[in-house]
Amino acid sequence: MAMKRAASTLITTTSSTISSLSSSSASSIITRNLHASGGKKKIVGVFYKGNEYASSNPNFVGCVEGGLGIREWLESQGHEYIVTDDKEGLDSVLEKHIPDLHVLISTPFHPAYVTAERIKKAKNLELLLTAGIGSDHIDLNAAAAAGLTVAEVTGSNTVSVAEDELMRILILTRNFVPGYHQAITGDWNVAGIAHRAYDLEGKTVGTVGAGRIGKLLLQRLKPFNVNLLYHDRLKIEPELEKELGATYEEDLDAMLPKCDIIVINTPLTEKTRGLFDKNRIAKLKKGVLIVNNARGAIMDTQAVADACSSGHIAGYSGDVWFPQPAPKDHPWRYMPNHAMTPHISGTTIDAQLRYAAGVKDMLERHFKGEDFPEQNYIVKQGELASQYR
Amino acid sequence: MAMKRAASTLITTTSSTISSLSSSSASSIITRNLHASGGKKKIVGVFYKGNEYASSNPNFVGCVEGGLGIREWLESQGHEYIVTDDKEGLDSVLEKHIPDLHVLISTPFHPAYVTAERIKKAKNLELLLTAGIGSDHIDLNAAAAAGLTVAEVTGSNTVSVAEDELMRILILTRNFVPGYHQAITGDWNVAGIAHRAYDLEGKTVGTVGAGRIGKLLLQRLKPFNVNLLYHDRLKIEPELEKELGATYEEDLDAMLPKCDIIVINTPLTEKTRGLFDKNRIAKLKKGVLIVNNARGAIMDTQAVADACSSGHIAGYSGDVWFPQPAPKDHPWRYMPNHAMTPHISGTTIDAQLRYAAGVKDMLERHFKGEDFPEQNYIVKQGELASQYR
Repeated sequence: MAMKRAASTLITTTSSTISSLSSSSASSIITRNLHASGGKKKIVGVFYKGNEYASSNPNFVGCVEGGLGIREWLESQGHEYIVTDDKEGLDSVLEKHIPDLHVLISTPFHPAYVTAERIKKAKNLELLLTAGIGSDHIDLNAAAAAGLTVAEVTGSNTVSVAEDELMRILILTRNFVPGYHQAITGDWNVAGIAHRAYDLEGKTVGTVGAGRIGKLLLQRLKPFNVNLLYHDRLKIEPELEKELGATYEEDLDAMLPKCDIIVINTPLTEKTRGLFDKNRIAKLKKGVLIVNNARGAIMDTQAVADACSSGHIAGYSGDVWFPQPAPKDHPWRYMPNHAMTPHISGTTIDAQLRYAAGVKDMLERHFKGEDFPEQNYIVKQGELASQYR
Repeated sequence: MAMKRAASTLITTTSSTISSLSSSSASSIITRNLHASGGKKKIVGVFYKGNEYASSNPNFVGCVEGGLGIREWLESQGHEYIVTDDKEGLDSVLEKHIPDLHVLISTPFHPAYVTAERIKKAKNLELLLTAGIGSDHIDLNAAAAAGLTVAEVTGSNTVSVAEDELMRILILTRNFVPGYHQAITGDWNVAGIAHRAYDLEGKTVGTVGAGRIGKLLLQRLKPFNVNLLYHDRLKIEPELEKELGATYEEDLDAMLPKCDIIVINTPLTEKTRGLFDKNRIAKLKKGVLIVNNARGAIMDTQAVADACSSGHIAGYSGDVWFPQPAPKDHPWRYMPNHAMTPHISGTTIDAQLRYAAGVKDMLERHFKGEDFPEQNYIVKQGELASQYR
């Protein structure tokens, strides 16, 4: 794997696609790859801290203390394994290890932002692994230009996210949050909940994106007797589409105003960044409900908060924010009719076990110079996966 | 209808089943029925107050102010229609009208407790209608002994309740509540949620009761790839059982310890009152999750609170309490890992429109002396429906 990458990097650096690369950075890539071609590696993992919860569950492998459960295995092979949650700024633990790490494992839940600057500084870097799905915290163009490989554990938490989306659809439709508030504050006011609580049955639900997660969501929505719409670059294969009873909408802006409930299931790319801005939100049905477990930056933060305040959006729920961790003054914490949580949907205990196993598998292949499962690649030998191009 | 009832009452009062009836109450029944046999009626509806929400939604018919949307229709026929939320004690509005009301409409959400004493006092009473499902707030034996008819709008909110149950299953499995708390308190601690968040997929879900609501829940759970168990008096018809992929468990106590998640879908009867007491809870899987939208009194209140505190029950969610409204010091408001709300699942706007239409239909039939749809009867001509016997 490391050898392959060195070869491809050399080819890539001479190609016109990255002609902007200076000759000094091109030579630094070659140096890095000589280092990377074998032996003991320095692997850094950036995860959220478990703190008092770390020892509460033996399967809680996704936190710093759990370290994906691969420490013993890595160290037995002589590799160095550093785990931290300290990822921001020049004084952070991550920054300290940037100059000589070989592999960086990060997650979308506590994203280590891998900027072009950090990539430039990481002279030994061979491989960027995402424990989970969604590698937009990495500057993918810079990673591609540097000839790096970026891979994630595709499929590891698709079910987890789809289930969580259905939960949020129901939480908004049924107006759960004010009911829960009443329970804990000693109140009892059924009208305060019921005046805007609805059945899901009979409503129109549209998903923006019908990839792995979107399809799992549509499957789970099927028995609710809803009107299912989906927008994607690609139409779902006819047999599955029929089974799901979902209708393809080629034109996103034709679909959106039909929806009582909109679910975002598209990766964050240059095309989807800020997709839901003030203008697009203004064209949605008044009283629309929005679920977004994809990425916070697909929304214009302030436009969402304003539309929740005006009532144009009647409910917004999701677990993704920009940036993450969300600052204390993030407007989504304070807007009315939200049901937000920290980034959590893809890091259930079940998902952690799956993405930990996936990371271990890729490290094992990397050490042996073997390829990864094809669907895991986000950047392979300097080429971005199709959805990011 | 009124004529029929008078006739059946006369038969019933002479039968041995209610031989305990004193001759004076038997004669009072006869008197009532002479009153009831025609003309203008006094109808009292007991609903929750809408207050500032009453005018916020034209379809919000389930509150006092909405009055099921039948005032104009009733008054145009010369009937008197009184609506109130004041239902407790001797000074309440309900109590004031008990002596001369003909029809009492009540709901499970804000239950008018119709005791044997009130039934005795209600000399003109002909008909008790439940706007919704579940008439356990009425002393059904006393109503039967008095020869009254009790009917509900069967099916009016089964979908609403089943959807809400699935929401609660996911809220507990995914550990939503602490995540939401973090969002609104400015916190960000993924570990505090993730260490006990799970996928629903692969878990064992058992429903205690697989009637109309239980079956709808099983249908909606099917695509989640869970292990589905159900206990009921009756086995589901083979074709549907196969479609649902659910396994029948004849012995409740054999099923319960297998379940990761238990959902209560049985009416409150003398057999189910206090069904989940300290002993039965002790035999459940440690870390079990329980969803109960059926009736609060199926649980031993303190036993549930204690098991949540000890962690034996890892999560409890429901919208039913005893009594209702739940007092401010009800232990379920304060126990850990709950996701409680006031009684709300069956009173979505969609459900309100359906049960309002069902009540109107039964009143219309009653005025004309016609029978109700058979499945609506809880007490018919002095006989309890089979599940209450």
